[in-house]
Amino acid sequence: MKASVLFSGGKDSALAAVMLLRFFEVELVTCTFGAMDNWKKAQEAAQKMNMPFRLMKLDREILGQAVEMTLKDNFPSNAIKYIHQKALEKLAQESKIIADGVRRDDRTPVLSLGEIKSLEDKFNIHYIQPLSGYSRKTINILVEKLFKIKEYKSTDEIGAEYEFELRNQIKKKNIFPLEHTQTIILEIKEKSAKI
Amino acid sequence: MKASVLFSGGKDSALAAVMLLRFFEVELVTCTFGAMDNWKKAQEAAQKMNMPFRLMKLDREILGQAVEMTLKDNFPSNAIKYIHQKALEKLAQESKIIADGVRRDDRTPVLSLGEIKSLEDKFNIHYIQPLSGYSRKTINILVEKLFKIKEYKSTDEIGAEYEFELRNQIKKKNIFPLEHTQTIILEIKEKSAKI
Repeated sequence: MKASVLFSGGKDSALAAVMLLRFFEVELVTCTFGAMDNWKKAQEAAQKMNMPFRLMKLDREILGQAVEMTLKDNFPSNAIKYIHQKALEKLAQESKIIADGVRRDDRTPVLSLGEIKSLEDKFNIHYIQPLSGYSRKTINILVEKLFKIKEYKSTDEIGAEYEFELRNQIKKKNIFPLEHTQTIILEIKEKSAKI
Repeated sequence: MKASVLFSGGKDSALAAVMLLRFFEVELVTCTFGAMDNWKKAQEAAQKMNMPFRLMKLDREILGQAVEMTLKDNFPSNAIKYIHQKALEKLAQESKIIADGVRRDDRTPVLSLGEIKSLEDKFNIHYIQPLSGYSRKTINILVEKLFKIKEYKSTDEIGAEYEFELRNQIKKKNIFPLEHTQTIILEIKEKSAKI
């Protein structure tokens, strides 16, 4: 049975994907609006993890809408949640089991239980959040066991997250919070993540 | 690194335990007030799973308090949550990483995010709910892959859950909802759950 995991190349979505290997054939799915080629960093991370990778194109109108929301709110949280929801809806049309790297302590992008159930019912799918019962502190221990990662500031380097395409669209507005730390998988510490 | 999982012998806590095998040395911990020997059913299930089992004694005062709460509320939900919290607190004094089988859709016993963080901070532990990002529907698929189980009505047969000790204390009051389905692990479908 196949499970499709929204994958940014970072530690959370990587860990979520590894957790599902116990039960499913997992594919890593990275989104792009086609405005940048930052998704290639996620592809490289997927290769390091030795797991199947797929690029999923999201409609540019979604990016336009997200830019408007960010400008209106003067903060990107709602816009990022909006993109995340649209990405899940697209993925739900392509796969019966979908997942992401949302953590217990995440503020954005977090769907409410009602939104989660609505997504599952509308598309008749299973939506799994493998990390939603884990704190950031616990996740750091598991990541340390599994991966060699690089941390970097989102202001210093471009990551594979779709927020970078959003960020790029509105970069002159200085709306994104500074000093947000991103991660990218450099290496998996074991020969196979499947153990 | 050791992780201690509150274990009832049923499918949820069994699945939660298997999920943690990827990262920890997992022990299955079943609670008793010492009023009944129903915990032996959990011990048998743990043997079927080929995983370490430990019995943890809870203070009889907790049971007395839970009986009073059930009688006052005329419903056992708060009392069961109370016992669950006390069990987690006891376990948190004995193990640095603790877990249980709480699901995304569970109503009882569910700690709020504040209560979870408070527990982690007070005892300086990691509390993991491996199933909290999974619906009941998804969990049933995973359980089917992993275990051979028996389902039974809680009115027909006594299970290893501590609610049966509570139930036994107030059995003449007819407060527990009828027709609650329990499960017990009969067999693990693979030679080892560690794959």
